[in-house]
Amino acid sequence: MCVLGLGLIGGSVMRAAVAAGREALGYNRSVEGADGAKIDGFDATTDLTEALSWAAQRDALIVLAVPMPAVGLMLSHIADVAPQCPLTDVISVKGAVLDEVRSAGLLDRYVGGHPMAGTAHSGWAAGDARMFVGAPWVISVDEHVDATVWAQVMQLALDCGAVVVPAKSDEHDAAAASISHLPHLLAEALAVTAGEVPLAFSLAAGSFRDGTRVAATSPDLVRAMCEANAEQLLPLLDRALELLTHTRASLSEKGSVAELVESGHAARARYDSFSRPQIVTIVLGAENWREELAAAGRSGAVIRSALPGPGSRG
Amino acid sequence: MCVLGLGLIGGSVMRAAVAAGREALGYNRSVEGADGAKIDGFDATTDLTEALSWAAQRDALIVLAVPMPAVGLMLSHIADVAPQCPLTDVISVKGAVLDEVRSAGLLDRYVGGHPMAGTAHSGWAAGDARMFVGAPWVISVDEHVDATVWAQVMQLALDCGAVVVPAKSDEHDAAAASISHLPHLLAEALAVTAGEVPLAFSLAAGSFRDGTRVAATSPDLVRAMCEANAEQLLPLLDRALELLTHTRASLSEKGSVAELVESGHAARARYDSFSRPQIVTIVLGAENWREELAAAGRSGAVIRSALPGPGSRG
Repeated sequence: MCVLGLGLIGGSVMRAAVAAGREALGYNRSVEGADGAKIDGFDATTDLTEALSWAAQRDALIVLAVPMPAVGLMLSHIADVAPQCPLTDVISVKGAVLDEVRSAGLLDRYVGGHPMAGTAHSGWAAGDARMFVGAPWVISVDEHVDATVWAQVMQLALDCGAVVVPAKSDEHDAAAASISHLPHLLAEALAVTAGEVPLAFSLAAGSFRDGTRVAATSPDLVRAMCEANAEQLLPLLDRALELLTHTRASLSEKGSVAELVESGHAARARYDSFSRPQIVTIVLGAENWREELAAAGRSGAVIRSALPGPGSRG
Repeated sequence: MCVLGLGLIGGSVMRAAVAAGREALGYNRSVEGADGAKIDGFDATTDLTEALSWAAQRDALIVLAVPMPAVGLMLSHIADVAPQCPLTDVISVKGAVLDEVRSAGLLDRYVGGHPMAGTAHSGWAAGDARMFVGAPWVISVDEHVDATVWAQVMQLALDCGAVVVPAKSDEHDAAAASISHLPHLLAEALAVTAGEVPLAFSLAAGSFRDGTRVAATSPDLVRAMCEANAEQLLPLLDRALELLTHTRASLSEKGSVAELVESGHAARARYDSFSRPQIVTIVLGAENWREELAAAGRSGAVIRSALPGPGSRG
């Protein structure tokens, strides 16, 4: 496989895949990133054409792990040098990547992915081979996806220790907006608001630290994921604003925050008791396999060991 | 000393104070709480008059650690049985407690306190003698406070391992609204919003878990602290709503969340580099000691070892 981009996520995929016994070449635009990987004993280059030729010769899986703004340019190089390679990505917004892939004419060989893990740090040095252990890794089951490529991406995620959540790209993006992008905006708003109050930082304890932890994420990364997912994020931001505006009125007029607090507590309790049944009976490539996987994923089910189908090791 | 209420905070104060060599009697309304303390080897009773008589005989420091709604009744018993005892509290809203203490005629002997620590759990069993180690413990320096009582409360906080932050009650309440009460409301809104999106809980990772952790807190506790501090919380909730509404418009119209994300990141970075100089030169009871402590606390300074003054061990 060939990992394009050796930042936090790409670098962690590289480490995890090699630890699982895979052959892998990494590409990074900056010398620092590629050198970091080489010093740690991995194969890496700053020459994109070299990396893509290597992939094309082996029909290797290409893993796109660059920031959203770099995706278009990267895809045009792939279309030139390695158009037949199976292609996935680890970028947090699936609809926007799908659009770019379609524009580049690479849809046939593309299956989107998104490992739901990370830290507030970035760059090769922040990576970790065990970052994805137990984490959900979404794999897209949009109408176009090919069962053989899907099986390869599934195997990569399982090799990295993740549990696979099959989902349609738009459903992934709505969910990601609610559990990742909206939390980032709320954390930023909390940090700004508290930062304006004398004495606040001096008293800050767990509630503030937890509530603003993701505000330490690089602004460029936060902007990239929120802005690329605006369509799904806006209605959820509206919903959060509606809840908070209603609560503001209730606190001011009736002295009560009961409604929000009780429903928030109940929602968090549902999350804490949420279970993940295992998907075992679906065969990749069989009739309606995409719809069946999407429905299973929607109900909370996950893939913990490779499903049968084309290209499966099972 | 006499601890009234053996829940999470009161129970932890009891454990920490006894571990520091203090004599302490605990009172809890429920048999379970008092029995839990006794089984763990502490002196505890469900008889409030017995506890207050014990305190009155020894001129012991009384630590009020009951939920806000129970404060008024508790103070009227104190006024009856132990009106001369020095009195503090560990309740999260200082202005509201101050008002109740004033109504009960106990202002002369009262110095408010608030240890900024806790967990999402509650009750005696959740307590921990080391809960306050390194945590900020606010001690009120309102105009009325007596230097001798202040020194006693300071010594209790230091015995529990906390760092003391001197602050006026209203300044504490504004800061607490920004770093505790507002974070709770944002966490509740996030939990509700995500709970309405299919697939969200299945994909939830660090951002969501951190952002909703405090939504697991008992709704009664969250309501009690937010509602008792409505006056300070409302303008901060308005400020957060203003930031988010502005961001919503910017994302919708310009596709950008840059302004919020950059200012949020900068505020969090200021918090991460925040330092706490030590207060060493102020003498309790000296001219302008309250104003000097308030100014020092406002600038981020803390007390790490007992200041000289009446009742000081130093």
